[in-house]
Amino acid sequence: MSTGPQPAGDTHALVELDRDQCLAMLGSVPVGRLVHTAHELASIVPVNFVLLADGVYLRTREGSAALRLAERGQLVAFEADAYDPVGRTGWSVVVHGHAHRVADRLAVALLDDSLLDPWAGGERHEVVRIALELVNGRRAGGPRH
Amino acid sequence: MSTGPQPAGDTHALVELDRDQCLAMLGSVPVGRLVHTAHELASIVPVNFVLLADGVYLRTREGSAALRLAERGQLVAFEADAYDPVGRTGWSVVVHGHAHRVADRLAVALLDDSLLDPWAGGERHEVVRIALELVNGRRAGGPRH
Repeated sequence: MSTGPQPAGDTHALVELDRDQCLAMLGSVPVGRLVHTAHELASIVPVNFVLLADGVYLRTREGSAALRLAERGQLVAFEADAYDPVGRTGWSVVVHGHAHRVADRLAVALLDDSLLDPWAGGERHEVVRIALELVNGRRAGGPRH
Repeated sequence: MSTGPQPAGDTHALVELDRDQCLAMLGSVPVGRLVHTAHELASIVPVNFVLLADGVYLRTREGSAALRLAERGQLVAFEADAYDPVGRTGWSVVVHGHAHRVADRLAVALLDDSLLDPWAGGERHEVVRIALELVNGRRAGGPRH
């Protein structure tokens, strides 16, 4: 693993993760954060998601900000992380990619039924995919290796 | 608590939190996410922080993106959330405010020593405050009340 330059004696350095490591981390958590800029203010919304080979999938409702972004094919960011307050370690992964509405009704039905069950409830029968265009991540804390 | 309009029969609705509720939630977690736009891509970086009466405080190092934002007095977003995968509930809070470098060396020393001990390590003797200008939050999941 490439660790990049680290300060001498720094036992809690930040270490960059490679793409495979990022995707493994991303697939290990149920919630991430959809980030985009709206009226010059950053919008950050936690959402349930699933990671498939070609993107991050999330379920949303008609008229949502996520669906509007997807219908415009807008570039968005999606972040997930986890941390251990006891071990004082953590990781974070950020995907940048264009959002698209999933139009294939069979795919939507499958995702709708089996994979994506958002806690926020309501009628959420639209599916948005965020392409895995840029994937970056790092971990912090713990010994260097 | 004002719940706003909710779909009938929706037991997992999103509920807006008021400012006091938001600050109580924000003060209950050790890690949040500093969000800003850099070269048209959203940057999202988890950081340890403490919440004081006049802002979110985080420790950073000389030359960091956070410090550059603070030196320009830039408007940033700061998000924190928590979720319970078993109970399928969660909350999130977003602060929008201008970032400032804390120049008072006594304040920095106090924060440096006692309050802010970043997991990412390294030499992080600069302190950035994000003012609590806009504070919004909501919770998802669980029964309505």
